[in-house]
Amino acid sequence: MRDDWFIRGEIPMTKSEVRAVSLSKLELAQGCVLWDVGAGTGSVSVEAAMIYPGIRIYAFEQKPEAVSLIRANCEKAGTDCVRIVEGTAPDTFAYADRVPSHAFIGGSSGRMRGILDKLLELNPKMRIVLNVIALESLAEILEIIRGRGIEAEIVSLQVSRSEKAGRLHLMKGQNPVYIISFGGGV
Amino acid sequence: MRDDWFIRGEIPMTKSEVRAVSLSKLELAQGCVLWDVGAGTGSVSVEAAMIYPGIRIYAFEQKPEAVSLIRANCEKAGTDCVRIVEGTAPDTFAYADRVPSHAFIGGSSGRMRGILDKLLELNPKMRIVLNVIALESLAEILEIIRGRGIEAEIVSLQVSRSEKAGRLHLMKGQNPVYIISFGGGV
Amino acid sequence: MRDDWFIRGEIPMTKSEVRAVSLSKLELAQGCVLWDVGAGTGSVSVEAAMIYPGIRIYAFEQKPEAVSLIRANCEKAGTDCVRIVEGTAPDTFAYADRVPSHAFIGGSSGRMRGILDKLLELNPKMRIVLNVIALESLAEILEIIRGRGIEAEIVSLQVSRSEKAGRLHLMKGQNPVYIISFGGGV
Amino acid sequence: MRDDWFIRGEIPMTKSEVRAVSLSKLELAQGCVLWDVGAGTGSVSVEAAMIYPGIRIYAFEQKPEAVSLIRANCEKAGTDCVRIVEGTAPDTFAYADRVPSHAFIGGSSGRMRGILDKLLELNPKMRIVLNVIALESLAEILEIIRGRGIEAEIVSLQVSRSEKAGRLHLMKGQNPVYIISFGGGV
Repeated sequence: MRDDWFIRGEIPMTKSEVRAVSLSKLELAQGCVLWDVGAGTGSVSVEAAMIYPGIRIYAFEQKPEAVSLIRANCEKAGTDCVRIVEGTAPDTFAYADRVPSHAFIGGSSGRMRGILDKLLELNPKMRIVLNVIALESLAEILEIIRGRGIEAEIVSLQVSRSEKAGRLHLMKGQNPVYIISFGGGV
Repeated sequence: MRDDWFIRGEIPMTKSEVRAVSLSKLELAQGCVLWDVGAGTGSVSVEAAMIYPGIRIYAFEQKPEAVSLIRANCEKAGTDCVRIVEGTAPDTFAYADRVPSHAFIGGSSGRMRGILDKLLELNPKMRIVLNVIALESLAEILEIIRGRGIEAEIVSLQVSRSEKAGRLHLMKGQNPVYIISFGGGV
Repeated sequence: MRDDWFIRGEIPMTKSEVRAVSLSKLELAQGCVLWDVGAGTGSVSVEAAMIYPGIRIYAFEQKPEAVSLIRANCEKAGTDCVRIVEGTAPDTFAYADRVPSHAFIGGSSGRMRGILDKLLELNPKMRIVLNVIALESLAEILEIIRGRGIEAEIVSLQVSRSEKAGRLHLMKGQNPVYIISFGGGV
Repeated sequence: MRDDWFIRGEIPMTKSEVRAVSLSKLELAQGCVLWDVGAGTGSVSVEAAMIYPGIRIYAFEQKPEAVSLIRANCEKAGTDCVRIVEGTAPDTFAYADRVPSHAFIGGSSGRMRGILDKLLELNPKMRIVLNVIALESLAEILEIIRGRGIEAEIVSLQVSRSEKAGRLHLMKGQNPVYIISFGGGV
């Protein structure tokens, strides 16, 4: 889905290409339960719902402005498979009535360790995909996966997109994103 | 889908992340007809078939070895929505009994202009996504889209993937790929 | 040299990392004559002058505002080895009294073919390094070097630089630049 | 300098573009004393010596095979401003008779903290540039600079280089490198 499809406001959004790769790494399938932690505008939840109409999705988000955007984007998409859980993860994990088979973590607001601990307690074999921009967050995840003996795939994605200047196409560099994936029934 | 899911042989394959972004740019939907031109191992056809089980796909490929791989990968996936058209595109386009709504061009073997001309003759409003590695091919496409007055989105994707060396993660640069998209009912 | 060393105004400037690689590709040496075509702020001329104080440099630039910046930056650097030639290249090439051994082309304002033709007429064995951002300019250069049978090295440089956000380092993607090099007494 | 200028053997070498940017970040000047820690083939030492013939360089390297290469490359370059210190840094730092004003760390073999501690003890205001490939090494450096309250610039460099395939230029992705710089009399 295109970035400009989504109602966005001021909330940062996972960009189209990063979202596509992240969804691919999630390896979703019919019947799965996806937790979208730090859901932001809900773009990952909504695109997952569009591709896999039968799955159950929980979107965890603490910012009221973002919660409104998730709601608006779900409505625009005409999907009813996203449950929005407002508040600060991982405390709010208790409000979801289905154990996750998959999780996407787009933002952790400094609570990465608590979020990962809780997810893996709920389902040690679940598949988890994370997006990371800050080098310090990457460092923290490396420490966590080493501590747990997790074998993860780490992909760095550097996207440039064309902009027209008269008849010319100029390539504009996007910010690089780390996509970390592990777990799942492989 | 992971690259190592596919039966590959010596045929070059669109890599997982590039495939995910290309499929996202295609904007497929139930009911569409996808032509996969220069299908190679069939990885794009098969992944499209897995995500959208109801669509009709035609995989055009001239190398006999690749044709066998497409067949093997479709069989492994258990999909029957891919029709394989053996021979050299665009001549073989006549053998497909459904007009395309979407096309993915992963390889053109020097016949890019003929392929695009024929596709746009068959359906001037179709959506087309191309993957290009050679700078000369990129230049040719720029010339074609300028000549036709097509507004295209051009994205360059630079992926690095981790490799383990003892306890360390070393990032290995993949080759950059240009993904060009245009058309469709936007 | 750091980008913030230079007096810049509104004129686009070759960024530090791209400048370093371009200067390295130029393979300058004491005694050489460098033509800096489309010199902009003069950052390449000035840095070359600082590293090789004995060389002779001609900075060709058509925008009066940029000419003032080149002058200001040379003055700040305390170098007197840069001659500024105001006006539109390649017409202004006649005003330089030394044949070039090296040329850097940072901007051609649509006159790339004329500039390259003239340079190679003046010195068929000279070393030339070009920076290109627009894909159409890259395509034009590919056509020129193919037409002349030139073997060029093409490098694409994608730089990301850290920005601090509190205690975090976020990587910000710069725009990718093509650096094309050929010729010279190798 | 081109990578193929250097005598290399099996020792990994800082690539041309990364070397150019690293040397630029070092901000060397006549009269400085550069320590090249984990000098490998000596490519950074030799290129620094070629650009700044008057500076004093100490190349620290523990692998006997690499030490021979440094010697061979200095000889090929005809420079006598590089002192080679064989053995394991930072223990071997005692054998250099000049305090460093600049240091380049291309490899630390797991002793990054000890090397940085010792360098900053010898000269707290020196300029240091590091090349890092492993994400764990990057994480370690982030921790060290945070602990010391150092403001560093972090640049990620992703280079792709053309390879000819018939008349086509295919871009081949190099491995991304982090270049971290701090200190110096700015």
